[in-house]
Amino acid sequence: MSGRAGIVVTGTEVLTGRVVDRNGPWCSERLRELGIDHESTVVVGDRPADILAALRWLAAEGCSILITSGGLGPTEDDLTATVVGEFQGRPMVVDEPLHASIKAILARLTARWPNVDQKSIAAGNLKQATIPEGATILEPIGTAPGLVVPPLDGSDNPTVVVLPGPPSELIPMWAAAVETEAFVSVTAGRRTIEQSMLRLFGIPESEIAATLRSARDSGIDIDALEITTCLRRGEIEVVTRFAPDQQVLYDSFAQFVADEYPEALFSIDGTTVDYQLAELLKASPPLTIALAESCTGGLVAARLTELPGASAYFRGGLVVYSNEAKSRLAGVPEELIAEHGAVSEEVAVALAAGARKALNADLGVGVTGIAGPDGGTEEKPVGLVWCAASLSSGEHAVRKLQLPGSRQVIRDRTTTVVMHLAAGLLRSSGR
Amino acid sequence: MSGRAGIVVTGTEVLTGRVVDRNGPWCSERLRELGIDHESTVVVGDRPADILAALRWLAAEGCSILITSGGLGPTEDDLTATVVGEFQGRPMVVDEPLHASIKAILARLTARWPNVDQKSIAAGNLKQATIPEGATILEPIGTAPGLVVPPLDGSDNPTVVVLPGPPSELIPMWAAAVETEAFVSVTAGRRTIEQSMLRLFGIPESEIAATLRSARDSGIDIDALEITTCLRRGEIEVVTRFAPDQQVLYDSFAQFVADEYPEALFSIDGTTVDYQLAELLKASPPLTIALAESCTGGLVAARLTELPGASAYFRGGLVVYSNEAKSRLAGVPEELIAEHGAVSEEVAVALAAGARKALNADLGVGVTGIAGPDGGTEEKPVGLVWCAASLSSGEHAVRKLQLPGSRQVIRDRTTTVVMHLAAGLLRSSGR
Repeated sequence: MSGRAGIVVTGTEVLTGRVVDRNGPWCSERLRELGIDHESTVVVGDRPADILAALRWLAAEGCSILITSGGLGPTEDDLTATVVGEFQGRPMVVDEPLHASIKAILARLTARWPNVDQKSIAAGNLKQATIPEGATILEPIGTAPGLVVPPLDGSDNPTVVVLPGPPSELIPMWAAAVETEAFVSVTAGRRTIEQSMLRLFGIPESEIAATLRSARDSGIDIDALEITTCLRRGEIEVVTRFAPDQQVLYDSFAQFVADEYPEALFSIDGTTVDYQLAELLKASPPLTIALAESCTGGLVAARLTELPGASAYFRGGLVVYSNEAKSRLAGVPEELIAEHGAVSEEVAVALAAGARKALNADLGVGVTGIAGPDGGTEEKPVGLVWCAASLSSGEHAVRKLQLPGSRQVIRDRTTTVVMHLAAGLLRSSGR
Repeated sequence: MSGRAGIVVTGTEVLTGRVVDRNGPWCSERLRELGIDHESTVVVGDRPADILAALRWLAAEGCSILITSGGLGPTEDDLTATVVGEFQGRPMVVDEPLHASIKAILARLTARWPNVDQKSIAAGNLKQATIPEGATILEPIGTAPGLVVPPLDGSDNPTVVVLPGPPSELIPMWAAAVETEAFVSVTAGRRTIEQSMLRLFGIPESEIAATLRSARDSGIDIDALEITTCLRRGEIEVVTRFAPDQQVLYDSFAQFVADEYPEALFSIDGTTVDYQLAELLKASPPLTIALAESCTGGLVAARLTELPGASAYFRGGLVVYSNEAKSRLAGVPEELIAEHGAVSEEVAVALAAGARKALNADLGVGVTGIAGPDGGTEEKPVGLVWCAASLSSGEHAVRKLQLPGSRQVIRDRTTTVVMHLAAGLLRSSGR
């Protein structure tokens, strides 16, 4: 057993980018947690020959376990189970108990489609219940079962874990997959690899490269750690993987970064600013938040309500795209807009205070800017954004941004700044 | 020349999903436009042995051209050029003109950082100018050159096109890459492959499987087309690739689907419902839209404002998470909420009308539901959502949903339903 794993992601829609693959990265992280080395992910279309070639290559590379995602649907172009059967030299057979249980699931699901074609439902049902002989079934989350398909006796092939494509099915099925004999035998005797993440906000990525060098110069053996840095949504993530016996070394590295960046380092345990802002609001006494956003068009509200339980602190938001809406809903005086323009410090502050009052919240946040691609001027170019946060005590914080990039990047990046601005104001107010 | 291509995406941050790969899909689409068959994309970490293994496999699979992305930076862990040199059996040499031109770029870039470490800059410069002997240089967009590395005379290896990882560098460099001898020789005599997309909403995926079978039964040679279906955000996408001389066949297939699903087929040219709704609003006379959303928490507003130019028709949105906000901002009578509950047809309709009035718009949309994971009851379980759209003429449309899945899926899926509900109401009103 080499203990290495390979992933095969199937689907022409993934290969060509109409759907972004989330399964490869997700499974990769889970494999790491189990101490299994993940070599590579192969993305192939819905062609059986290409899927088979990918399985054979990863087997030849010495992988002892392969994970596939996708291609388990009821339609004819979903062929992964058949290909894996061929790969293992196992004939395809109908599993009658599975056939019956999928039938029951389908009866429930199709109850709301009165005119559904029962013949095609039955054909899809039969197809999804046809599996390689000797495979272990992972119970369907949707209608597709997962499969664990071992090699034939005497074969050197790896075991193949066959999972459905929708992440909402793959993720819950993973727990059953890792309980199987195939996984257990690969992970036996492995030691876990630790992973820790630092998050920083407000410094360029090149600073971190320099910091790694000075950590090494000051005697910290960072080459014994596997450190990767990455710029994401305007924050820098420093992810370190290390063997458990390197914990002391990692701690000294983390302390070095903390000493270098007392302001920028906001998370030493990988928690997100979203989580931190929610915790700051929920602390005693609990506070509530409200928004008035223009260029972000609802993205800040959507981000704040992504976490379950947001209703405890989120009062609501105003998406005030037009000037009329800014005045009518958020109470921004028309004269203020006329004097300073809709994208201005004054209007951002008025939006924050206006949201707070309109929604009867403790903390108000205002965002106004030019997301582009049109609407910029020489004085106020695309990417100019003003953000403000305002507490009912009168304390407030303002931030001016000049962001590069596309409309999408500008909108997204602004939401990150707003989260930090609000969290920072709460901290400086003594939360 | 097989005319097949393979892509190797390098980077541990991509393999483990901290960065989403955009390059593989982007290059895949460009290859398709050139008529080059793209077999698979291999994602590997920053380990030279894994990169080399991926190149060798794709070569063994018969690819005549390979594209790599990433690993061209100035730092020690960027090793793609060296690995490609080894793959082709070409020694690494310093290209002096390239060395000088990168030096000039660096001088410009580092001018604004006074304390930059000149020694490490010089080392990076030399590293980036060291290339496999005989490679064609693609001029740097950032500091990294691209490379086209042909096989040695007498070798069966494919040509490797080496591109940088940042999409902002890879994309502009592509134009130079396709002008090279390597690309031209592979694409010579190739014909373009057409791609068309149908989008359907409101039918289960199994229906499409049945339709493919009945199209075949009725004499349409669908096996001469490459058809893939995929369920995405609650819609079904039917993507067909075909040689240009199969256009008539494709048209008859598309007509067959249109005849089967006159209601569900909403796009025959791949346009999204988001685009269609925007067009319906912008048609003459132009109409405006406003929202009051609860469980989607701003996602509908964010989706509506994703398209540039949304300010022409989007008046604004109310994110009315609390009951108080529903009454105070959207004018939903407190008694109505008390009588029917916040998640009810009556409140959805009142939200739609309230948004329309509060924001002085022509079309109002209201959404209220239970996104979970908590807050569900036996009578009103998690996933229950009411959506309503209301025109100032009094016409309106309502839709009740009972969605399966996670909080994220319920929120996202609801936005799709809302887009269709609003577009459908506009169409039925005669737009």
